[in-house]
Amino acid sequence: MTVAEMGEFGLIERVTGRLAPGPTCLLGPGDDAAVVTTSDNRVVVSTDVLVDGRHFRRDWSSATDVGHRAAGANLADIAAMGATPTALVVGLSAPPELPVEWAEQLADGLAAEAALVGASVVGGDTVASPTLTISVTALGDLRGVSPVTRSGAQPGDQVALAGRLGWAAAGFTVLSRGFRSPRALVDAHRRPLVPYQCGPVAARQGATAMIDVSDGLLADLGHIADASGVAIDVRRELFELPEQMVDAARALGVDPYEWVLTGGEDHALVATFPAGSVLTADWRVIGSVAAGGGMTVDGEPFTGRGGWDHFR
Amino acid sequence: MTVAEMGEFGLIERVTGRLAPGPTCLLGPGDDAAVVTTSDNRVVVSTDVLVDGRHFRRDWSSATDVGHRAAGANLADIAAMGATPTALVVGLSAPPELPVEWAEQLADGLAAEAALVGASVVGGDTVASPTLTISVTALGDLRGVSPVTRSGAQPGDQVALAGRLGWAAAGFTVLSRGFRSPRALVDAHRRPLVPYQCGPVAARQGATAMIDVSDGLLADLGHIADASGVAIDVRRELFELPEQMVDAARALGVDPYEWVLTGGEDHALVATFPAGSVLTADWRVIGSVAAGGGMTVDGEPFTGRGGWDHFR
Repeated sequence: MTVAEMGEFGLIERVTGRLAPGPTCLLGPGDDAAVVTTSDNRVVVSTDVLVDGRHFRRDWSSATDVGHRAAGANLADIAAMGATPTALVVGLSAPPELPVEWAEQLADGLAAEAALVGASVVGGDTVASPTLTISVTALGDLRGVSPVTRSGAQPGDQVALAGRLGWAAAGFTVLSRGFRSPRALVDAHRRPLVPYQCGPVAARQGATAMIDVSDGLLADLGHIADASGVAIDVRRELFELPEQMVDAARALGVDPYEWVLTGGEDHALVATFPAGSVLTADWRVIGSVAAGGGMTVDGEPFTGRGGWDHFR
Repeated sequence: MTVAEMGEFGLIERVTGRLAPGPTCLLGPGDDAAVVTTSDNRVVVSTDVLVDGRHFRRDWSSATDVGHRAAGANLADIAAMGATPTALVVGLSAPPELPVEWAEQLADGLAAEAALVGASVVGGDTVASPTLTISVTALGDLRGVSPVTRSGAQPGDQVALAGRLGWAAAGFTVLSRGFRSPRALVDAHRRPLVPYQCGPVAARQGATAMIDVSDGLLADLGHIADASGVAIDVRRELFELPEQMVDAARALGVDPYEWVLTGGEDHALVATFPAGSVLTADWRVIGSVAAGGGMTVDGEPFTGRGGWDHFR
């Protein structure tokens, strides 16, 4: 059955029937608006839009995968502020011929990813559109910590990474070349593995700046460098490239550091900490902050393909 | 200049440069997420998606108009819970050839409508898409009152209306027939005049249920009837039809009550109050609640065109 055959209200009923409100949801789907708890009279909010064929491909990813990825991209933004995600609202723009099942599985993926951090889908909207588009807004709770922005990095800080880099980009390259394996890389493109809990931990450990890697490490660290008015250098020797990735890169004739340094969508967290900070095991130091401006790799400008600009 | 020529980051810079953070915005655009105040450790959240050609037409409405309408639709949902809107986040899916000016004027309209209630645009996302789509999420603050849901109407309650009905539908009909006047009706289609402040006032006055009229009075009161398990009757004689509307309806050969009873998008607020409640002058009693189920007009089922289902 298609969404057009089912109609808007039927679709909403089917989808919301699959959503279980989480502990932070005081009033869930079905009214004009939802109500969500906060704990310190502040709420963190971020929104992302995913467009079919541009941010996901239905022949490469299941609806559940797309749900995981759409939720993950937003929940990572909340974590990158040092906050704990509490809720998602979702706008689905669906072509009339979209199977209802696709929308249901999308909701399952969104809900499952949110549940990883104790959050839930608390509301949404569905409209007909020629272009399948998913817009997700995430809310989060700082639980008393100051938000960790992009602008607080200081010369002398160390740069540290939590989570994976280059996996989603490697999976994308694999799929682009018509392959379906290595499975671990392809799966990483389909669903990010986001170290959500590292965001609030970093905030409590004194992170001076933080961002999630959605556009590529160099592009996103570049945002921190620009916002903080500092220079950031990362060192190749400090990364540990997984064997699978090195093998796949060799087979495909790609420099694996291009995946690691410029590949987005793994939603790793990268943060700056004062020199001498003792970091938990989730964090790996990958570089340092100095006076000046701009991004370098091993002290040199990176000459490979750069970030990702959605209109270009 | 088009959005593709300017690029994502340039566009974001241009648009956010026009946005002034409001008093409830602790951290505005430019980071992974924004931070907004709450006052009672709860936040109200609602989301809506508007699709070009379906929810607005660029030859009928300016970008500023579309911004007002997109913001109004969401802010009205917050008001209909009894809350005061605090913030908007906006996702813009833009075809590459969209003029940057259109996006800027959209932002102006969104910001101006939000400013009517002391709220502001605190963040967003822009992506390329074949279909121009605007997704808006609004946040609100209940300021200590209980949320007014759709499910609290009781037999014996009176049904009251704040704001205008049928104006946007009349304007839509006028435009559909190729006319550009009466101006007041056309303008009402372009920008709703939403009685935002009546929402929190109704909550404090003991409203038992409330909704904003986005799909049409009968459809939306029908949601209250269904959610509350009651019957609702509205009486034609209790409406006051403006002369302009009556004249336009006669000229176009339309029953003006069809506009009033089934026309959406004016975002009036309709609420139920216990019998004998003394209402402020903004509210007009238009009907009553009884035991049973379903919606009637003057005691009879309404046989005209009904609500609005986005997929049909």
